[in-house]
Amino acid sequence: MSIDAQQYRVQAEPYYQPQGREVALFEAAYRNRLPVMVKGPTGCGKSRFVEHMAWRLGKPLITVACNEDMTASDLVGRYLLEGGGTRWLDGPLTTAARIGAICYLDEIVEARQDTTVVIHPLTDHRRTLPLDKKGELIQAHPDFQLVISYNPGYQSLMKDLKQSTKQRFTAFDFDYPEAGLETTILCKESGLDAETAAKLVKIGHAARNLKGHGLDEGISTRLMVYAAQLIRDGVDAGDACRMALVRPITDDADIRQTLDHAIDVTFA
Amino acid sequence: MSIDAQQYRVQAEPYYQPQGREVALFEAAYRNRLPVMVKGPTGCGKSRFVEHMAWRLGKPLITVACNEDMTASDLVGRYLLEGGGTRWLDGPLTTAARIGAICYLDEIVEARQDTTVVIHPLTDHRRTLPLDKKGELIQAHPDFQLVISYNPGYQSLMKDLKQSTKQRFTAFDFDYPEAGLETTILCKESGLDAETAAKLVKIGHAARNLKGHGLDEGISTRLMVYAAQLIRDGVDAGDACRMALVRPITDDADIRQTLDHAIDVTFA
Amino acid sequence: MSIDAQQYRVQAEPYYQPQGREVALFEAAYRNRLPVMVKGPTGCGKSRFVEHMAWRLGKPLITVACNEDMTASDLVGRYLLEGGGTRWLDGPLTTAARIGAICYLDEIVEARQDTTVVIHPLTDHRRTLPLDKKGELIQAHPDFQLVISYNPGYQSLMKDLKQSTKQRFTAFDFDYPEAGLETTILCKESGLDAETAAKLVKIGHAARNLKGHGLDEGISTRLMVYAAQLIRDGVDAGDACRMALVRPITDDADIRQTLDHAIDVTFA
Amino acid sequence: MSIDAQQYRVQAEPYYQPQGREVALFEAAYRNRLPVMVKGPTGCGKSRFVEHMAWRLGKPLITVACNEDMTASDLVGRYLLEGGGTRWLDGPLTTAARIGAICYLDEIVEARQDTTVVIHPLTDHRRTLPLDKKGELIQAHPDFQLVISYNPGYQSLMKDLKQSTKQRFTAFDFDYPEAGLETTILCKESGLDAETAAKLVKIGHAARNLKGHGLDEGISTRLMVYAAQLIRDGVDAGDACRMALVRPITDDADIRQTLDHAIDVTFA
Amino acid sequence: MSIDAQQYRVQAEPYYQPQGREVALFEAAYRNRLPVMVKGPTGCGKSRFVEHMAWRLGKPLITVACNEDMTASDLVGRYLLEGGGTRWLDGPLTTAARIGAICYLDEIVEARQDTTVVIHPLTDHRRTLPLDKKGELIQAHPDFQLVISYNPGYQSLMKDLKQSTKQRFTAFDFDYPEAGLETTILCKESGLDAETAAKLVKIGHAARNLKGHGLDEGISTRLMVYAAQLIRDGVDAGDACRMALVRPITDDADIRQTLDHAIDVTFA
Amino acid sequence: MSIDAQQYRVQAEPYYQPQGREVALFEAAYRNRLPVMVKGPTGCGKSRFVEHMAWRLGKPLITVACNEDMTASDLVGRYLLEGGGTRWLDGPLTTAARIGAICYLDEIVEARQDTTVVIHPLTDHRRTLPLDKKGELIQAHPDFQLVISYNPGYQSLMKDLKQSTKQRFTAFDFDYPEAGLETTILCKESGLDAETAAKLVKIGHAARNLKGHGLDEGISTRLMVYAAQLIRDGVDAGDACRMALVRPITDDADIRQTLDHAIDVTFA
Repeated sequence: MSIDAQQYRVQAEPYYQPQGREVALFEAAYRNRLPVMVKGPTGCGKSRFVEHMAWRLGKPLITVACNEDMTASDLVGRYLLEGGGTRWLDGPLTTAARIGAICYLDEIVEARQDTTVVIHPLTDHRRTLPLDKKGELIQAHPDFQLVISYNPGYQSLMKDLKQSTKQRFTAFDFDYPEAGLETTILCKESGLDAETAAKLVKIGHAARNLKGHGLDEGISTRLMVYAAQLIRDGVDAGDACRMALVRPITDDADIRQTLDHAIDVTFA
Repeated sequence: MSIDAQQYRVQAEPYYQPQGREVALFEAAYRNRLPVMVKGPTGCGKSRFVEHMAWRLGKPLITVACNEDMTASDLVGRYLLEGGGTRWLDGPLTTAARIGAICYLDEIVEARQDTTVVIHPLTDHRRTLPLDKKGELIQAHPDFQLVISYNPGYQSLMKDLKQSTKQRFTAFDFDYPEAGLETTILCKESGLDAETAAKLVKIGHAARNLKGHGLDEGISTRLMVYAAQLIRDGVDAGDACRMALVRPITDDADIRQTLDHAIDVTFA
Repeated sequence: MSIDAQQYRVQAEPYYQPQGREVALFEAAYRNRLPVMVKGPTGCGKSRFVEHMAWRLGKPLITVACNEDMTASDLVGRYLLEGGGTRWLDGPLTTAARIGAICYLDEIVEARQDTTVVIHPLTDHRRTLPLDKKGELIQAHPDFQLVISYNPGYQSLMKDLKQSTKQRFTAFDFDYPEAGLETTILCKESGLDAETAAKLVKIGHAARNLKGHGLDEGISTRLMVYAAQLIRDGVDAGDACRMALVRPITDDADIRQTLDHAIDVTFA
Repeated sequence: MSIDAQQYRVQAEPYYQPQGREVALFEAAYRNRLPVMVKGPTGCGKSRFVEHMAWRLGKPLITVACNEDMTASDLVGRYLLEGGGTRWLDGPLTTAARIGAICYLDEIVEARQDTTVVIHPLTDHRRTLPLDKKGELIQAHPDFQLVISYNPGYQSLMKDLKQSTKQRFTAFDFDYPEAGLETTILCKESGLDAETAAKLVKIGHAARNLKGHGLDEGISTRLMVYAAQLIRDGVDAGDACRMALVRPITDDADIRQTLDHAIDVTFA
Repeated sequence: MSIDAQQYRVQAEPYYQPQGREVALFEAAYRNRLPVMVKGPTGCGKSRFVEHMAWRLGKPLITVACNEDMTASDLVGRYLLEGGGTRWLDGPLTTAARIGAICYLDEIVEARQDTTVVIHPLTDHRRTLPLDKKGELIQAHPDFQLVISYNPGYQSLMKDLKQSTKQRFTAFDFDYPEAGLETTILCKESGLDAETAAKLVKIGHAARNLKGHGLDEGISTRLMVYAAQLIRDGVDAGDACRMALVRPITDDADIRQTLDHAIDVTFA
Repeated sequence: MSIDAQQYRVQAEPYYQPQGREVALFEAAYRNRLPVMVKGPTGCGKSRFVEHMAWRLGKPLITVACNEDMTASDLVGRYLLEGGGTRWLDGPLTTAARIGAICYLDEIVEARQDTTVVIHPLTDHRRTLPLDKKGELIQAHPDFQLVISYNPGYQSLMKDLKQSTKQRFTAFDFDYPEAGLETTILCKESGLDAETAAKLVKIGHAARNLKGHGLDEGISTRLMVYAAQLIRDGVDAGDACRMALVRPITDDADIRQTLDHAIDVTFA
């Protein structure tokens, strides 16, 4: 097997601020090789957490951004035509099962059901992956673990994980960090001073209160980091906030006015 | 035929706790080569039972996790391009019919109808499988048997087996094991002490009573085993229960509170 | 033409109990090469009848289990890649037309409309099959006949044969055999004694009365044969009936209770 | 061009009983190479008429049974893989345009819209067929003519020809032949005596009066010919009528009773 | 580039009767290479006008009949397998952009949206066509112009051009020619005398008044030319009108009676 | 890597009239490599702005017109058959990530969700693009930046960017330029005199007031430039306005009359 496992190593420690006991609990889940589901809203740090854990456990990480056009073959592998014949190409899930990587299926609920069913035998006592098209039954590497992410705010009647999938995972809840922690994150990621960062956090929390009252989601930590970077780069605070916190998330005139007002007041 | 039947043998005896006369009845069905349908909720041990029977009967077992994108070709086989020509590749059902394996189609109702129709001639007096695309008519090996699983809780008007399929199977009902048996299973699978295991079972039964009252499905035995493993590994019982029994199956605040309360009371 | 017609011969006389004048009428239809439609519920013996007639007429039989993913190409044929070029592979309908077989399209209404339209020129005075993709016009072998099956209970507004298809067939009605005949069939197929067989038939008839009152279909003769085989094999009559007659066809608690009661009373 | 035009010649004169001036009018349309649409119910002789005209005009006839899975490529042609390269294969419409055949698209409304749009440039002053995928623009042979059939009883809001297609055709109405003519046809096609044939026609007309009152379509002339053939073969007239005229077209118990009664009375 | 541009030249002057200033305005649009949309009902002469303008401007014309199964690749091009490798085949739009043809997309609204989006960069200041699959960015030939047709009567909520497409075109309205002009056209195209042609035009105008009152579209000039040709060929005027003007466009008994009456009165 | 980056350079300065501080803000976003979303109505200059910024920053620009049939493979790349084997062909997004181009996804909301999910890892701290089908993980070139456009007026419940996508971008609002600026643009782009250009702008503004009152969108600056070019070319102002400003955008008789009246009055 000539797969370059090295390219999947997380090289540098990804910055991560723990919110609770999630690091220790994830380690326990990994010791027992229990499948893990990380739940929470957009941009609250789920992917960062998984990356951090892969680095901490010293395991390769293979991330797959799921989408509704993804098929089981995209995960498992397919035959390629080559030199007059065919060559089997492992998909990312198969690669992870072979090399003992943590396989992270991001927003798995977006994928078609065949991709969720395909992970079933990897998530129970069998820990196998049948490559039906190749006639091969893979026994997962002892280090292999499956992690999926799931945003409860998105689920609808049309698109939800089947119970037979949910009942194969242990789960962690994530949320935006509390104010002090989020301020620290902004400073660390942008180099901005703590006072200005705290103002941004204040605006963000105001917006999160509008969730369900005109906003589909609150402002993510990621967008706040964008605003912090722009201010740190010399952009006017009002311009930076409008450009990074307001314009991307809503076109509703009332909501925009409310948020713009909060920005003006905060940076007055 | 160079198929490696050996890889489909169940090597070690899979742990299985009989709930009634299902072992003897399955053996009678197998003696008469009657097709079998195993019915019951998620994670109650259907797949484990089939695996156990394959081991007990000493027959190879080929399992296929059905899904809505699976086509008849995925079961029966297809032509592959190779060395300037094509090579026929048997699908798992064809392989099972040739080598005399038990073919287990897990959650067959998920599959498209063409995959269910394709099994018809294998499930009546003909015991044949026509490979239309290859122009070959396979007579099933005398040891071949077809087993399917079916979760009655999932069926809807849109997705159900056709009567012409149902009327080709004998059927077994499965359910979660009763409390004493389930406690024994938890101890056996996790190494946890009986007293703590009994507490987990008590929580599980509380949750199963919520089925239809806010929960789509009860907590499966599998998730209880996860909780037992985490506690056995030193994780706080409350953390373990929340992570393995509550967070995976519901995002409803009321149900979570009810379950969290049951956990706190039980492990107080 | 190197097609192995021999593999499509029905080798041994298939057991068939005539219900009326259907054998003579089918023979008249065959003498005039009129297309035939056999109508009736699941498991009443339609396929067995066609097999029997093919044996009686001494003609090869090619059966195709139709399904909603079946395309005209699956019936007619397609090009395969081979040795750097392509090779045409006749589909089962084309093979039947060439070698003069009886072609039996089982549950044709399941197929997509293109597969039903493709049979039109084979079912009128032309008796031709145009292979558009090959640029060939096949004149059917003089022995060729087309037979289709049709379950009137399944048809809906969404899925029905077009009038322009129906009006190309002569038709036979089939139903479950009357009690005496059905008892004979059970004895013949399972080796069970007539008295016990009669009890099974009694239960079956009770269930058929529930059709439309909670049951979609009655219990087929096939399922009764299963029960007979299990009892003959030493299985308790109640267990055998529940496993073969009740569990496969319904999950409704009331219907199950009614049927279980009938079983208990009958075998008390 | 090595297309075997000869195989598309209508060898023997197809039996056709004119209903009015349709033969002369079709000839005028052909002289002016106007596209023709033949309209009428199932089995009234539309296809037979077109075949007859092709024989009378001495032109090859290429018939395509349209269906909802048919694509423009099925009509126009496609590239085939061959000997390491590709070879273009003309579709039936292209072949007809090249060799100067009458191309008959049967039940064109069943086809997808792309197949109807593809005929547009062949049906106006351009008389061209662009093979976009081949980069070739075909000028139709002077003898080429396009004929389509259309059953007004089938059209719905979902499936109808576009006005821009309809407005490219001259049209003929067809219907079942009147009683005397239909009797003559039955005698000619089956060898049955005129008296019995007249009785069949009487039954057929009774059924046609039920159209819209429980029957979707009346009984076609084709089915009456079937009944005539069976009676001529020695089958009991009642059996023959039930098998050829009633069972194929309806499962409604009331309608069946009405028709069976008419049969009994007529042949009493 | 070995494309045979010559085959796309309009050889002889297409007969066209201007209705207003459209010839001069189209010339101005062409001088400025502005994209042009020609709007109007079926069969009023839109395609003829475009052909005429291509002839008048001395530019090659590439016409594409759009349809709902047409993809961007059908317009832009695709890779073909050939001689063991692949060869890129330009689609008609790409060919037109390379050789400087007028590309006429007929009934563009029928096409899927990807085909309309693909023309965007060809219709603004960029005048480019990115061949994403080939990694090539084509700069359109200075003579290239894009023309589309659009029938406002067909558009629905489901199928309409996007505003971002509409706002890239200048537009011309077309309609059926007024009576005198239409009479001239009939005479010119069929050789019929003016008096009879005027009667046909009178019938046509009567029918156009029924548009919206039982007729979806009026009778096109094209159908009137058909009727004129048939009468000129010796067909009875009533037969010709029924066959060319009435039968193709409606099956409604009332409308047919109204039109037949108008025909009888006119040719009495 | 033999990609011809040169072909993606913007050669000449694209004419762009700034409406506010957008040039400086875009430069700040680019310095921090923040993803950018440009929002606004059709034809207001979004694409021109992006082109201008690419020229100003001296970076190659790769533009992709998104559409609903576009798949992730169209962006990322695919395998091509070649010389008996396969060759990987980078898609435009991959090319941009490799050579450090600005990748502009025009009207991204038109694309299927898989194409939006594929950009996620390129728009957070990872700046990676996994080529799952090739088993390669690309680290974006330091100069790479992602820009998308978005027309808020088009979004519906069915088609909108997911929050998890929106929350990855900074955003700019665009609108039609104010009257003086728009007049200047018309003069510059067409060579028309300022007085006539001002009249066109006046008509355009009248039409924009009808948005939501019968017009889906106002008249874009692009259409006004068309009108200006035609007038400059000698076309009558009324004809030019009708052809460029009215006919393309509406078929509503009332709206047309209102706009025609405004044109007549303005150019009286």
